[in-house]
Amino acid sequence: MDSHVASLRSALGDDALVTDPAAMEPYRRDRALDPDAGVPLAVVLPETTAQVQAAIRWAAEHRVPVTPRGAGTGLSGGATAVHGGIVLSTERMRAIAVDPVTRMATVQPGLLNAEVKAAAAAHGLWYPPDPASFEICSIGGNAATNAGGLCCVKYGVTADYILGAEVVLADGRAVRVGGPRLKDVAGLSMLDLFVGSEGTLGVITELTLRLLPAPPPPRTVVAWFDDTEGAAAAVQQIASRIRPSMLEYMDRIAVNAVEDVLGAGLHRDAAALVVARSDDQHPDGAEIAVMLDALTAHGAREAFEAPDPEAGERFAHARRIAIPAVERLGPLLLEDVGVSLPRFGELVAGVEAIARDRDVTIAFIAHAGDGNTHPLVVCDPADPSRNERARLAYGEIMDLAIRLGGTITGEHGVGRLKRPWLAAQIGDDLLDISLRVKRALDPDGILNPGTIFAADDTAPTRRGQSA
Amino acid sequence: MDSHVASLRSALGDDALVTDPAAMEPYRRDRALDPDAGVPLAVVLPETTAQVQAAIRWAAEHRVPVTPRGAGTGLSGGATAVHGGIVLSTERMRAIAVDPVTRMATVQPGLLNAEVKAAAAAHGLWYPPDPASFEICSIGGNAATNAGGLCCVKYGVTADYILGAEVVLADGRAVRVGGPRLKDVAGLSMLDLFVGSEGTLGVITELTLRLLPAPPPPRTVVAWFDDTEGAAAAVQQIASRIRPSMLEYMDRIAVNAVEDVLGAGLHRDAAALVVARSDDQHPDGAEIAVMLDALTAHGAREAFEAPDPEAGERFAHARRIAIPAVERLGPLLLEDVGVSLPRFGELVAGVEAIARDRDVTIAFIAHAGDGNTHPLVVCDPADPSRNERARLAYGEIMDLAIRLGGTITGEHGVGRLKRPWLAAQIGDDLLDISLRVKRALDPDGILNPGTIFAADDTAPTRRGQSA
Repeated sequence: MDSHVASLRSALGDDALVTDPAAMEPYRRDRALDPDAGVPLAVVLPETTAQVQAAIRWAAEHRVPVTPRGAGTGLSGGATAVHGGIVLSTERMRAIAVDPVTRMATVQPGLLNAEVKAAAAAHGLWYPPDPASFEICSIGGNAATNAGGLCCVKYGVTADYILGAEVVLADGRAVRVGGPRLKDVAGLSMLDLFVGSEGTLGVITELTLRLLPAPPPPRTVVAWFDDTEGAAAAVQQIASRIRPSMLEYMDRIAVNAVEDVLGAGLHRDAAALVVARSDDQHPDGAEIAVMLDALTAHGAREAFEAPDPEAGERFAHARRIAIPAVERLGPLLLEDVGVSLPRFGELVAGVEAIARDRDVTIAFIAHAGDGNTHPLVVCDPADPSRNERARLAYGEIMDLAIRLGGTITGEHGVGRLKRPWLAAQIGDDLLDISLRVKRALDPDGILNPGTIFAADDTAPTRRGQSA
Repeated sequence: MDSHVASLRSALGDDALVTDPAAMEPYRRDRALDPDAGVPLAVVLPETTAQVQAAIRWAAEHRVPVTPRGAGTGLSGGATAVHGGIVLSTERMRAIAVDPVTRMATVQPGLLNAEVKAAAAAHGLWYPPDPASFEICSIGGNAATNAGGLCCVKYGVTADYILGAEVVLADGRAVRVGGPRLKDVAGLSMLDLFVGSEGTLGVITELTLRLLPAPPPPRTVVAWFDDTEGAAAAVQQIASRIRPSMLEYMDRIAVNAVEDVLGAGLHRDAAALVVARSDDQHPDGAEIAVMLDALTAHGAREAFEAPDPEAGERFAHARRIAIPAVERLGPLLLEDVGVSLPRFGELVAGVEAIARDRDVTIAFIAHAGDGNTHPLVVCDPADPSRNERARLAYGEIMDLAIRLGGTITGEHGVGRLKRPWLAAQIGDDLLDISLRVKRALDPDGILNPGTIFAADDTAPTRRGQSA
């Protein structure tokens, strides 16, 4: 092992390598806190594509697993270190160039999402994708998971803003896929294949992002419901008629957790809070009227437009901090299931039933407008029985989403935590051809083994057997 | 061969099979009119996914090439029949169901784009992608080529509206990829891989499409220029500042060809016509002002907002009929090259130089706002020398686009015509891994051989050698 690492060190330089166990510790897991994370041989901290290539070439030569890593804010265990592998963190790859003429940015993967937004805003431009973690998550991680956020309901997901990428392949070659072109259909859509592949097909070392002109100021609508069914029905009516720029949902548990933090006077007794936005500029405010009508028609106790942008932002902020607020109740198993809107009410009710049956606390928050939900299953490290019930509930929620024709993950990725449910959602045949693509691009199975695919299925021995 | 076809006939039923040479003739080519098109064994006209599966299973068993075909309006030779193969036309697969609640449509591939638009409009909804051929091209062909159109500059391309698909694989299995979910990152992005794969990875038998609420009425701006440089600069300024819903360009040759048809009083002496639209609803008409300012600042001879929707539509119509209008000058070699906007002027000038040097007529029309252009190289069947020069010009335009960092195809696809230029654009390494994906999904190379990839590279013998 030591001679292996020595050759890696000489290929990369001292500065780019961490082997001290204490210093490596923070690189072993993402926010899914996988208890089974391995101890890597080394953490690699490249600054350049050439260094990424050198690390991957070394790994390919020695058949050492590579765990690519952005900022480590992943929630599905997609950046869990493998014993004896290397962790490749892109945190030092932080260059960015914004071209206001073409409205594009060229960025290295280690920049935070918020830094990309800020660099764009400095030119009066806008990078829309906004995971709730946008201040701490990396743009490379966003691309690797095809991250979503609050604005997706109108403005789409990360993939919609990626025009091109430089990717280091499993054999160390670097390829450019796509580029600064708004329309390009030359060859297979390999760019889209790399986006969202969670580091299993290559390491993204540069991105070309599409930017938009600065968005018009939003108007915010807030509604409180005494029942979740009414809130779900109102959400569906809004989403079917207009394109809100945000359409969020929080249940009573989430509202109370946020109110514990903010003390802002949120209604602790309400069953659900809906926060919606419109950035439509039509002078008659038609979208606001559609939203208020739908909320009232479905029995909102209160439904009103925020009187000013600051008041509106306070409600959006309340939604954004829901996950850390609920986390104060205990460590979370964080769901990311999605359904089409007519099934949203059934999902809410089903999750309530699971919480009751398993006697666990599950807060329910959602990017409701696109049917992407985050039931937050609260664990208790001091109570093994409760933890086990929480784990079972976590699986049952995915089973439920699949039964409802939904997805186990709308924006976080499969990682390791959701991998056991993938085949049940997509089917054995689609998993089979996905595995064939994985093996075609990473025949030795060194890239992020255990993520999306079972490590056994991508290991070369197994591959040889089934080829 | 005959016993082969008999078994295919018994698998599909008499009605679904055409073997009469005269009846097969219209199925041998798309609008690229490939002179090297083969004579197929049979044309298959399935109505159901099961029939598609039966045909592909038969083809897989007998290692017979399959050419999937939509409405045959392709412009790159992506639906060129192979000698001794079968052509699989989806023209009879015409079911559609629109769900106004989720704003989605489930469609079979044979429906025309215009029929999808009409079915959506019947519910007050909108399917945006609008290839200029929308009245005669199929939705399945749109998906297979990831077709573009005039609205892409603001509303994106076909892929942006495909949420799910049913695909019949090279071995006859049918898989569902994606589905009625606005956000779904479960597993590799196989849906995006099938979209735009030009029938080389599978046959799309059903699509789940995202629809939008009906668009607000557009306002149209028109400008005439005495020089192409000014028009190019104005286009760039507009696209960098706002999001027009259309931003089109025509040169003098195209304008004159259209005026020959319409007799509408278009300025025959102008160097360029720019037609732009805004559907922004801001009451101050800010986008219209930005457009008029940019056009005037860059020397437009005339720049004005169309006085009413009908007048605006007349200019949009003039742009849409440009290809058939120019076609009256002679058969066309139809380019689809794209560049980023700062290179648009260089592309225009470069194409002019090629036309001069090769002494051929090249009309220049463009979806200018996204840098996607269609230089139309006019051939003359009666003049072999001119035809040969046209063919050389066609290649030189692609060479130029690649030199400018652009693409050989923005929305039509690689097909057979542009295949010789693909490696020069995307590079050998990206072509290599694309080929690996192709071989992983179609190991016997039966799906649309010769399209995107050279048939030799996808044939199983060659595959065995390089594996």
